[in-house]
Amino acid sequence: MTIDTSLFPAGFTPDQALGKRAAVIDVLRASASIIAALQHGAREIRLFETPEEAIRKRDSSAKGAVLLCGERGGKRIPGFDIGNSPSEYGPARIRGKTLWFTSTNGSRAVLKAARTAKQVIIAGFGNMAAAASTLISGGGDCILICAGKEGRFSLEDAACAGMLAERIRAETPGVCHLTDETLTAVLIYRHFKDDLPGLLQGCEHGRALRQIGMGRDLDTCAVTDASQVVPACRRGVLRLLNV
Amino acid sequence: MTIDTSLFPAGFTPDQALGKRAAVIDVLRASASIIAALQHGAREIRLFETPEEAIRKRDSSAKGAVLLCGERGGKRIPGFDIGNSPSEYGPARIRGKTLWFTSTNGSRAVLKAARTAKQVIIAGFGNMAAAASTLISGGGDCILICAGKEGRFSLEDAACAGMLAERIRAETPGVCHLTDETLTAVLIYRHFKDDLPGLLQGCEHGRALRQIGMGRDLDTCAVTDASQVVPACRRGVLRLLNV
Repeated sequence: MTIDTSLFPAGFTPDQALGKRAAVIDVLRASASIIAALQHGAREIRLFETPEEAIRKRDSSAKGAVLLCGERGGKRIPGFDIGNSPSEYGPARIRGKTLWFTSTNGSRAVLKAARTAKQVIIAGFGNMAAAASTLISGGGDCILICAGKEGRFSLEDAACAGMLAERIRAETPGVCHLTDETLTAVLIYRHFKDDLPGLLQGCEHGRALRQIGMGRDLDTCAVTDASQVVPACRRGVLRLLNV
Repeated sequence: MTIDTSLFPAGFTPDQALGKRAAVIDVLRASASIIAALQHGAREIRLFETPEEAIRKRDSSAKGAVLLCGERGGKRIPGFDIGNSPSEYGPARIRGKTLWFTSTNGSRAVLKAARTAKQVIIAGFGNMAAAASTLISGGGDCILICAGKEGRFSLEDAACAGMLAERIRAETPGVCHLTDETLTAVLIYRHFKDDLPGLLQGCEHGRALRQIGMGRDLDTCAVTDASQVVPACRRGVLRLLNV
């Protein structure tokens, strides 16, 4: 199998995902928030590209029945119920609920990949082993799509893609081809693998989150293999895989 | 000083180069061809975004006075005098000549950077030391712009940017800040630094050039520190720096 990676959201085109299994990676912080929400019993998470679209649709058809979730510039969107901190997605608030979610980077990347990919899942450090198993057992080529930060490269997504590629390769010896972008991701991961919390504290995106008072989320997002949840996208909605 | 890097041509916007010194890197092969041309006595190299523009202007104003140079898909453009192999830019053919040049990646990146940068030079493995000295002595922040391959990432440009960043940092100890993209470039360079010819033979762009019979250029483009030539761009024209 070939493991391709899109390190850079502005360069990703849906044809790169055509016929492949895709894992969208948004370490800070959509991956962790979405995994937490489904772990804690959210019924489903519908993705929106813009806050305006989510607000308009809720006002016209579903007022009160859903929680509006997401961020712009790292902060909760005015009028929304929940932001993009995994700490906000606890069971008391989430269980049985329908979430409508929009983030600057992650939700857009998922919707773009879903146009052409055979399957789209969400991956982060938290569900690393489960995401790797899903991609391996599904068979065929895959692409690891880094959501980035406002259209730009992000080091932490690349490192997470590199870890995922290493895990897949370790479990499918001798049959994996890594593209140049995947090799780059692997080199970044190897550099930081003994200190993922340090990576998240020091990278540009992590420093920006600390500056707006969201630094408490960084250690949460660095925790590896804590969840077996694999969110999968179908028709713009994320649910637990095979549920 | 801050050393920024643009690893992904599709994501580079002129505002990233605003007020900085910019080095455009197109290892395969525009950097080597342009350095060879000026090394061997070309008078100047005017850059064009498209072959059509170069052909139209020569037909209307300068027929016979210039050599049309460049490639599309790695191959010499029909009707052009010279392709984009450094081996074609020897002194017998080039000395005293005016060249009009267009390549898929390099010439576009230079013209884009030149809209906003304080200075734009061409760097490759061949003029590494001279390029580093130019950026250091100029002072202020700089950006290393990887030309890539048809809008996409290229491993060899990233490695070259990483080498350039390492050289600059080694000569300006304690005062260099590397952005996340520059750190990525440095990690790629460190992985390949003992085998740059192997990098160029094995990377996706190098393999594509071998497939169209251009493999002989790869070792040429891997040679480091062979030239003191620093091509600098002013109003769309490359000349020897300070000449």
